[in-house]
Amino acid sequence: MKIIKSISHMRKQVLMWKKKGLSVAIVPTMGFFHKGHLSLMRAAGSRADRVVVSLFVNPAQFGPNEDLNRYPRDFERDAKMAEATGVNCLFCPDAKDIYPPGFQTWIRVEELSQGLCGTSRPEHFCGVATIVAKLFIIVQPNMAIFGQKDFQQLQVIRRMVKDLNMPVRIIAHHIVREPDGLALSSRNTYLNVKERESAPALFQALKIAEKMVVRGNLSVPEIIRAVKRHIQSFNNTKIDYVFLGHPESLRPCQKIVGESLLALAVWVGKTRLIDNTLLKPQVNHANRKDKSKDL
Amino acid sequence: MKIIKSISHMRKQVLMWKKKGLSVAIVPTMGFFHKGHLSLMRAAGSRADRVVVSLFVNPAQFGPNEDLNRYPRDFERDAKMAEATGVNCLFCPDAKDIYPPGFQTWIRVEELSQGLCGTSRPEHFCGVATIVAKLFIIVQPNMAIFGQKDFQQLQVIRRMVKDLNMPVRIIAHHIVREPDGLALSSRNTYLNVKERESAPALFQALKIAEKMVVRGNLSVPEIIRAVKRHIQSFNNTKIDYVFLGHPESLRPCQKIVGESLLALAVWVGKTRLIDNTLLKPQVNHANRKDKSKDL
Repeated sequence: MKIIKSISHMRKQVLMWKKKGLSVAIVPTMGFFHKGHLSLMRAAGSRADRVVVSLFVNPAQFGPNEDLNRYPRDFERDAKMAEATGVNCLFCPDAKDIYPPGFQTWIRVEELSQGLCGTSRPEHFCGVATIVAKLFIIVQPNMAIFGQKDFQQLQVIRRMVKDLNMPVRIIAHHIVREPDGLALSSRNTYLNVKERESAPALFQALKIAEKMVVRGNLSVPEIIRAVKRHIQSFNNTKIDYVFLGHPESLRPCQKIVGESLLALAVWVGKTRLIDNTLLKPQVNHANRKDKSKDL
Repeated sequence: MKIIKSISHMRKQVLMWKKKGLSVAIVPTMGFFHKGHLSLMRAAGSRADRVVVSLFVNPAQFGPNEDLNRYPRDFERDAKMAEATGVNCLFCPDAKDIYPPGFQTWIRVEELSQGLCGTSRPEHFCGVATIVAKLFIIVQPNMAIFGQKDFQQLQVIRRMVKDLNMPVRIIAHHIVREPDGLALSSRNTYLNVKERESAPALFQALKIAEKMVVRGNLSVPEIIRAVKRHIQSFNNTKIDYVFLGHPESLRPCQKIVGESLLALAVWVGKTRLIDNTLLKPQVNHANRKDKSKDL
């Protein structure tokens, strides 16, 4: 596995692959790999000839009071894990090269960046869109793999790619979970033992909602109430938001009439966790237009 | 010359050229070609194997009270002129394909888009940056040629290309003028006979400033005063701004200490004209660091 820090070297490496007709997939990450990352890397390897994993803790997507400085980092371990997973290139540029002096160009996906995580993290998706656009322009991948845990991020990037005519296929990867349902996240390392016991509340709440929908309860207020009640029954939890709405527009809905996104952000102690699921009403319960798109 | 409307056809055409190892230059335009445009096209042809001219009257760079609807258009004439100038491909996409339903991704070059034309046209450079980025992503040119008349636009695009790591060389082309000095612009067609007589005021004012600097007067307030006085001595003129400052940062300066940008925007009747020049103090007049960069 090649470890590349320089933007121009990365570009040259990809040009060499492209000249040989090889396809390239990128997996953008902030490092501190867990099984979720490795699953994205394997998905990339199964679809493309060459896999680039970018490892960049992007200052632009952290708010002023967020965890940029304490975000977990372990480059040696990450490099070993990526290599063992068959990654061809680990691209780990320096922040000073990504944001050189005088940097001032920002990409905003305006509507989709608002609401949900955008409410408590107002500049987060601008930082995400800008770094992902830069990575796509540098690496020129045929495809990019993103975890579905960051569902709003996925939709922001899909929209950016469409709006800016980027020739990159965006592939969503299922959420990888601990045995008790907690979605894998580098931030789970922040949780102490007590908090870790409360963390599965998110997954359990999603399951409660799924069951309600399967049983024919399509009332958004009732589902949201049940989700909130379950989460609040755990110690150390504080709900940031519970969203139920359209998975593409990310607009809230009052009644479930088709596949709908249920997304949560919950503080567990001082750690903010997110999770989501797609609620699929049974055809006999809803006037459902078939929207079985590959999300 | 090929005339291409479809984004995907444009992409395929460029891919075919790239496979043959041919270099590609783009000249982004809003059409209604004059000698200035043709000069850009010839400059492109002298530097690259293939020349793409984009012709798109970009709604996103017009303000709500600006001249989008009456902007001059003559596609047949433009196509003939481009073909006669040796252009390989005229790319004229539809607005509905460039800005499809739900479009919401905008690129802002924040500091450089403020001041000068950005003051009276607050969203103009966001519209410019976004369309140019889209054209660059679609056409993947090796280089792009821009006229130096739109000096702020040139610097916004240079910065965007640097910040977003776009592998495109930006080439500035000198201002092409009428015999009396008026800078060529599609908007000159708006001028009536009386207004046309006042229009050379801008060029003359730039020349007055150049002479002051050559003679050793490096006082910014004195130069600006002389420029304004000259323009105001013409009928039907109303100054939007007179800027004197650093050509890269576009920050105003109090004294001329190196190559400096003098840029003007002036209403002549209901037509807003712009022009600019680089003021170069003599080495014996200023503590000039040699900044003889290829602008």
